[in-house]
Amino acid sequence: MPSRETEISSIGEFELIERIRQIVGDAPPGAGPSQGLVLGISDDAAVYRPTPGKVQLLSTDTFAEGIHFDLTFTSMKHLGWKVMTAGLSDIAAMGGVPRFATVAISLPGKVTIPMVEELYAGIAASMKAYAYVVVGGDTTGSAGNLTITVSTTGEADERHLIFRKGAVEGDYLCVSGHLGSSVAGLKVLQREKERFLSGKDGGTFTPNLEPYAPALERHFLPKPRTDLIALINDKVRVNAMIDVSDGLASEVHHICRESGVGAAVYERNLPVVAITQKIASEFGDAPTDYALFGGEEYELLFTLSDGEYAKLEEFTDDVSVVGRIVEKEQGVTYEREDGNRTPLEPGGWNHFSNAGAKHDDRPR
Amino acid sequence: MPSRETEISSIGEFELIERIRQIVGDAPPGAGPSQGLVLGISDDAAVYRPTPGKVQLLSTDTFAEGIHFDLTFTSMKHLGWKVMTAGLSDIAAMGGVPRFATVAISLPGKVTIPMVEELYAGIAASMKAYAYVVVGGDTTGSAGNLTITVSTTGEADERHLIFRKGAVEGDYLCVSGHLGSSVAGLKVLQREKERFLSGKDGGTFTPNLEPYAPALERHFLPKPRTDLIALINDKVRVNAMIDVSDGLASEVHHICRESGVGAAVYERNLPVVAITQKIASEFGDAPTDYALFGGEEYELLFTLSDGEYAKLEEFTDDVSVVGRIVEKEQGVTYEREDGNRTPLEPGGWNHFSNAGAKHDDRPR
Repeated sequence: MPSRETEISSIGEFELIERIRQIVGDAPPGAGPSQGLVLGISDDAAVYRPTPGKVQLLSTDTFAEGIHFDLTFTSMKHLGWKVMTAGLSDIAAMGGVPRFATVAISLPGKVTIPMVEELYAGIAASMKAYAYVVVGGDTTGSAGNLTITVSTTGEADERHLIFRKGAVEGDYLCVSGHLGSSVAGLKVLQREKERFLSGKDGGTFTPNLEPYAPALERHFLPKPRTDLIALINDKVRVNAMIDVSDGLASEVHHICRESGVGAAVYERNLPVVAITQKIASEFGDAPTDYALFGGEEYELLFTLSDGEYAKLEEFTDDVSVVGRIVEKEQGVTYEREDGNRTPLEPGGWNHFSNAGAKHDDRPR
Repeated sequence: MPSRETEISSIGEFELIERIRQIVGDAPPGAGPSQGLVLGISDDAAVYRPTPGKVQLLSTDTFAEGIHFDLTFTSMKHLGWKVMTAGLSDIAAMGGVPRFATVAISLPGKVTIPMVEELYAGIAASMKAYAYVVVGGDTTGSAGNLTITVSTTGEADERHLIFRKGAVEGDYLCVSGHLGSSVAGLKVLQREKERFLSGKDGGTFTPNLEPYAPALERHFLPKPRTDLIALINDKVRVNAMIDVSDGLASEVHHICRESGVGAAVYERNLPVVAITQKIASEFGDAPTDYALFGGEEYELLFTLSDGEYAKLEEFTDDVSVVGRIVEKEQGVTYEREDGNRTPLEPGGWNHFSNAGAKHDDRPR
């Protein structure tokens, strides 16, 4: 329980906002990320000048305690970083770069002042890493759980916009980085939590998370692939793109539905790293299931022609071809290494039927 | 309890979003409010073209069940209208006009599909009334209460921007419309709810809300004062402005703090209509307390010189002079009709110490 001194009610909302302002920097208009910012936190609305000739992007994502995160094993600083990632990833998936964001938090009584300060320290770290500025938001009480909603703005050249629609039959289906580690990390955390709560070890149990560090980092500190946007915009022509927030299978379905096409996904090409295979093996799961259905990867899934892919290969080896766009009538299929082909369901965890199941589910 | 057919889990998130799209119209780019809209609900982020030469405004507000609204006496349609009002009012308070909005909802199991549809029907009514478009958002489950976060964008001429800072000693302190009805309506609703729950009438009690209709409408269907913006922008020079979302007293303090001035507020000039006086009288309250400390009025509070006020009077009689800006050292004072002058505390309900108190508290 919070002590008297750390209760938010002991300082009130205005003092709390003042502390948040100090942490996120309330940058005066100037160079760098705050260029074009006329007014940040301090008034009824933030004000900024759009870059002439650019279109504006806007994305909103909510993270609810008990649905998207579990405070028993998530630090507030990691949570701050993570809640900002979804919007940054959404902006990247349009071919844009982030500019400004607002953060709205609903705080139950159990959340203390130091916890809020840690949350914003994580947000400030994300701001610094990805060159954008938090310019406003809202702080309210909550009669239930902690809920955080982030709205992120970005900019793009209109000719560089990449939509979900646009995939063409014959396109390669590509994904950046690797898949499945985030949900693998989550499974380890949930297992260790259960062991701890079970008290089987007479209360002496200490989670040993060290061997799983790469998966845990992936889960707690996911990185939006803003690093690929300049390459994708300037060097190749991508036909359709989406970020992998809700599992590869679900995102492939989004692209196919919006583009009016089908797709074949190949098991043999799914990018799964060693730690994910190790964790899947511990749980007796197929690592490819983590890759297909695990959420919160924040990699980019995109389609482009053979010729464009050949160009892309010259610049990066961080992209895998995981399938091919086919005609709509063939639907979305999954081709196993043994050649067996089955329909690929969108999958992903449905957070309406699994409220409290602690699995992250980040579709829009 | 929701029946099997009306549970959101029976259709899943994508079908739910599809229904929302149909209700809010997913307007294709075109004339009217959707002019400049490149892409609404359907992708990772909404895309729109800023009007050349205008600055962009962004505001975010959260409404949490049990803090900002009580579903036992609030219809989902009214709630939909109301959650959009805060952002529209914030944009107006900067001297801007609204363009686009996102709506993020965290839905506990008790919220059914028809309830969500009603919520968006209220949102659609607000869109139509104020000529803006909902272009995205997020829908997630909630392990706690219903929470709704709205982000609203708008545009303004940079030379027309009106900040909280800018008030000058000697300025008139003016407020549009009238104050106190929203909290008066809320008090009636809470009283009738208690009567109903007490069961004193053997379960036959039916609330008689008819005599209070104007206050209830003010509480359930608050109207942002976008109608005054053209007048304020084109005909007069306003020095500072804020909307009255958290009570007049609190907003006067905001203007004074940001402008480095003091203010004297006059009891005799507070605009309170008959229904508010009637309700206050029933509760044995001072109607001026409702005007000073009641939230969610969404009127505009602004300061301007005598000369500018004289010009304003030619165009509208819907503005009252409620005080005067004075030097900082005099602080913020309240002058009663008997001439007695006392410090005016910011007041407003602190929702961190009153979680669950069901009083709305909408500061930023």
